[in-house]
Amino acid sequence: MELSFDENDFLSCCGSTQFAKLMASFSPFSSHHHAVSIARDIWFNNVHVNAWLQAFSAHPSIGQTRSPSHASQTSAQWSKGEQSTALATATGSSLQELAEWNARYMQKFGFVFLICASGRSTDEILAELKRRYTNRPIVEFEIAAEEQMKITELRLAKLFSSRENISSTTDK
Amino acid sequence: MELSFDENDFLSCCGSTQFAKLMASFSPFSSHHHAVSIARDIWFNNVHVNAWLQAFSAHPSIGQTRSPSHASQTSAQWSKGEQSTALATATGSSLQELAEWNARYMQKFGFVFLICASGRSTDEILAELKRRYTNRPIVEFEIAAEEQMKITELRLAKLFSSRENISSTTDK
Repeated sequence: MELSFDENDFLSCCGSTQFAKLMASFSPFSSHHHAVSIARDIWFNNVHVNAWLQAFSAHPSIGQTRSPSHASQTSAQWSKGEQSTALATATGSSLQELAEWNARYMQKFGFVFLICASGRSTDEILAELKRRYTNRPIVEFEIAAEEQMKITELRLAKLFSSRENISSTTDK
Repeated sequence: MELSFDENDFLSCCGSTQFAKLMASFSPFSSHHHAVSIARDIWFNNVHVNAWLQAFSAHPSIGQTRSPSHASQTSAQWSKGEQSTALATATGSSLQELAEWNARYMQKFGFVFLICASGRSTDEILAELKRRYTNRPIVEFEIAAEEQMKITELRLAKLFSSRENISSTTDK
């Protein structure tokens, strides 16, 4: 069975309007696997570098549960879920250190530190932030885009499974 | 003898305000070589990727002599000089083809096609544009930044030689 999605569905997975528009133009999709394959091609080969920056700006700083106001409600909710391990393992001092390094990162690179946080502790995330901070901006830009794609893939899976659940309930 | 320059001088060499501010913070310079070495480090290791986009946006499309309105007067004038070989070797049809490929490039990448044009014919530039058009956006972004640095180096040389000429005239 093919599943149809619109631009807003894809904006919840990745905050770039160019990406979401292009994804919607390929709807419907035969499977999650099919959508991921199209999404990867669009993300790495077809959108502008500005689209990457727009997508990054839809994420909250890691360790913060408050998403930017322009992020969609679904995106904000998923972001909280993705950070659940980090938040469960956080202490006051590690959150403070994370906030300081986030600010330092933002100052150096001009965009938020992006990491696919699912299942990762605050200590792991902080170590990764410090390691990546030493990168050249262009290198870090590409790493952030790869992390964004990992997040997008997880969210596409959620999008498909929620739609499949609705379909199977409706079919009964 | 050390030579001093301000932010506006550097904005004529490269249209990124972050780059120009950082360069000005290192003024005075002992030589052109000294300035180039600092400029390369700032450009490739310290400015945001957004600063690259800002610098690109200060250039006219290649084959056009009209610079964007936010480019400095000196930058617009130097840009014309840098394109003198291209313009001297251009025919109506090659300029037309260049304009079409420029538009196609802009649509794919979201920024102007950037090439250090000094001494290059329109045909050479067009061949390079077509070759680079096939690149992934992130690859092309880095190549454009390298071309911007070549242009910046040529302009820094002009900046230093004009200032040295003034100094030597004043000294007489």
